[in-house]
Amino acid sequence: MKFTERVHKKYESQWERMLSHPFIEELSGGRLSDEIFDFWAMQDYIFVREAIRFFSVLMARFPRQYQKPFQQTLAGLEHELQLFTDYASKRRIELDKVEPTPICHAYNSFLLASAYHEDVDANFVILYTAEKAYHEAWKKVRAGLKKGTPYEGFIENWAGEMFRQYVDWLEAELNSMTDGYPASRLAKLDEIFLLTVRYEYLFWEMAYNRLQWI
Amino acid sequence: MKFTERVHKKYESQWERMLSHPFIEELSGGRLSDEIFDFWAMQDYIFVREAIRFFSVLMARFPRQYQKPFQQTLAGLEHELQLFTDYASKRRIELDKVEPTPICHAYNSFLLASAYHEDVDANFVILYTAEKAYHEAWKKVRAGLKKGTPYEGFIENWAGEMFRQYVDWLEAELNSMTDGYPASRLAKLDEIFLLTVRYEYLFWEMAYNRLQWI
Amino acid sequence: MKFTERVHKKYESQWERMLSHPFIEELSGGRLSDEIFDFWAMQDYIFVREAIRFFSVLMARFPRQYQKPFQQTLAGLEHELQLFTDYASKRRIELDKVEPTPICHAYNSFLLASAYHEDVDANFVILYTAEKAYHEAWKKVRAGLKKGTPYEGFIENWAGEMFRQYVDWLEAELNSMTDGYPASRLAKLDEIFLLTVRYEYLFWEMAYNRLQWI
Amino acid sequence: MKFTERVHKKYESQWERMLSHPFIEELSGGRLSDEIFDFWAMQDYIFVREAIRFFSVLMARFPRQYQKPFQQTLAGLEHELQLFTDYASKRRIELDKVEPTPICHAYNSFLLASAYHEDVDANFVILYTAEKAYHEAWKKVRAGLKKGTPYEGFIENWAGEMFRQYVDWLEAELNSMTDGYPASRLAKLDEIFLLTVRYEYLFWEMAYNRLQWI
Repeated sequence: MKFTERVHKKYESQWERMLSHPFIEELSGGRLSDEIFDFWAMQDYIFVREAIRFFSVLMARFPRQYQKPFQQTLAGLEHELQLFTDYASKRRIELDKVEPTPICHAYNSFLLASAYHEDVDANFVILYTAEKAYHEAWKKVRAGLKKGTPYEGFIENWAGEMFRQYVDWLEAELNSMTDGYPASRLAKLDEIFLLTVRYEYLFWEMAYNRLQWI
Repeated sequence: MKFTERVHKKYESQWERMLSHPFIEELSGGRLSDEIFDFWAMQDYIFVREAIRFFSVLMARFPRQYQKPFQQTLAGLEHELQLFTDYASKRRIELDKVEPTPICHAYNSFLLASAYHEDVDANFVILYTAEKAYHEAWKKVRAGLKKGTPYEGFIENWAGEMFRQYVDWLEAELNSMTDGYPASRLAKLDEIFLLTVRYEYLFWEMAYNRLQWI
Repeated sequence: MKFTERVHKKYESQWERMLSHPFIEELSGGRLSDEIFDFWAMQDYIFVREAIRFFSVLMARFPRQYQKPFQQTLAGLEHELQLFTDYASKRRIELDKVEPTPICHAYNSFLLASAYHEDVDANFVILYTAEKAYHEAWKKVRAGLKKGTPYEGFIENWAGEMFRQYVDWLEAELNSMTDGYPASRLAKLDEIFLLTVRYEYLFWEMAYNRLQWI
Repeated sequence: MKFTERVHKKYESQWERMLSHPFIEELSGGRLSDEIFDFWAMQDYIFVREAIRFFSVLMARFPRQYQKPFQQTLAGLEHELQLFTDYASKRRIELDKVEPTPICHAYNSFLLASAYHEDVDANFVILYTAEKAYHEAWKKVRAGLKKGTPYEGFIENWAGEMFRQYVDWLEAELNSMTDGYPASRLAKLDEIFLLTVRYEYLFWEMAYNRLQWI
């Protein structure tokens, strides 16, 4: 069985729990409070800004054939920063004063540590899992909302056709890379998948409860 | 003013709050529950085991004159693992089945990401801060307890004379390294100090409340 | 005195020797053999392709304000690869069969090891030195040649106005970063400057003598 | 076929050429000039000192079960530094004034870049190949010489029983790690093996001809 099929089956309950987090449920239902969404936007701005570092190390370490598509992804990450800047400007949020919460800092640290420390395949798993999680979460939001919400830029970015193609490509490449892997290595990659899902869940949880350093 | 004097003054309240965490208060008063101490021991075992990776990268990146003393520290970290293994054996805890909690995983990720990503001076700040925090916490524990507790190995290790000399050496080296630094760089190092104190606090908090992945 | 002024003065003879290497002299005089230029082009193609990895790690490790300009540089490096591909196509060279010579491999290894291992300032010195060396070498070539040579794409790229502005910006940033540095750190950076000049010299030497693995 | 059997067969001529370098031939025949041996000793001192950095990164990145044996290897590398210091003292060489030649610098850069940049298996290939090459070279030297030469410390270190067991262990672990690998990954590891053999050859060549920066 393909790697992604297998891990989605193995960790189906964790994946579902992440996708049905109250943050996503209320956002899809058009009833999430502005304060909570603002808090998420400020933290995700930090997250994306720091994830550019994770991504740059991956550009360094991956085989040459990934560099051109990854340069497009990098441009996409800069576009996401612009989406947050535009949103913050409308909401009169001063993004340059925002500091990462512990969970935002932890997730970014996990990405960065892995970029340098883990082998290429493990980093591919993290990248795929995080992008797939966002794609599915925002498709759910798109399905629940009418046009004209303040979230349209985000919906178009993560639920749109270009992002879908990007996630499909990641999935196909990851499955190809891990084809024929021994069980011991798959066990390690499964752990990395689960860790990433857990951090995704914690990120929604942090935003929903506005969790700060204590 | 020396770097360490200045940051301890600047972040005095955060430092005091960390040192007076209920975990340390109750441990010093001889009234911490065994379950909580066991939980801490299992997580700190994971933490030290992974911190050996942080430390090994520092051995690679620091100037040659630090390598010999750092090899001693490495032996010290292996000794700490032995302390945990001995304790676990007495308490019939199966250490090899323990998984890191999110806060343990986050703190280790912060260390490892910094080891590879940050400059040498920033890593020196992390190392000093974490070791100093442990030294002071365990001196407090030693001051509160009579002889004959199950904690004596840990007390001797972190509150003892050898560890004191090691922390003093770190302090002197860090102050020498940062002497004459421009304000912009000191601002960055101050942030790193505060981050490390915060993670130290969170680690006690995690153990005290047995915080798991949610 | 500014860092760049000081090191160019200190290592003036090495710098001049590099710039007056027979490869550059003969190329500027329009009398370099095609075989030697082809050999250089094939190796510099490899060098640039691998230098993208060095550069990506720098994008990860440098402060945020450098990321946008560095993304432009990354696009510039991809443009250089295209120049080599076009040249190779005209000369019927199969670039994908080219392997790095030992000196090309060594220079790339030096860059990559530094990117991960050395502090940010040391990497800035390498980047500045390598780019400055190419800018000056190709200005010399431009000054010596009439229009209409097969080298025009390379001349325009490295001797042109855009590259001049980029090198000036690197110079100004590096001088600002190192302002007020202690002598001990400057001594380390001076070594890095000299090492980079030496590798630049060796690269011309390797191309001129078509030095291979022995 | 086991990985090591296969690559030794595939690159037999390069391996033999390295082992029959005039440096080793003349050393084994007791007719190598003191000046050349001194030059080698000074450069190998630098090489080992910097290889400790390579090795420390490997200690960080390898699975836990390798850390204890690697700590022994680290002690072994410090012992090698002591052998060089003792030799230099007898020969009145000031080791702290020695600078790396380009080939020494290149080989160390290759090791360090790989430690951070390549996956764990590629680094295992480098480690095995370099240690195996030294073991075989010094066994050849031991076979050719009577007792009582100034080289006995080096012979005992690299041709001795402890080192043989260490190299055997590396070989067995590497063969176990690469068992069942796909052809595409093996092709990459083969390249790394060949590169390491080439750098080993160049190192003898550099010492024999006392090659300096030009």
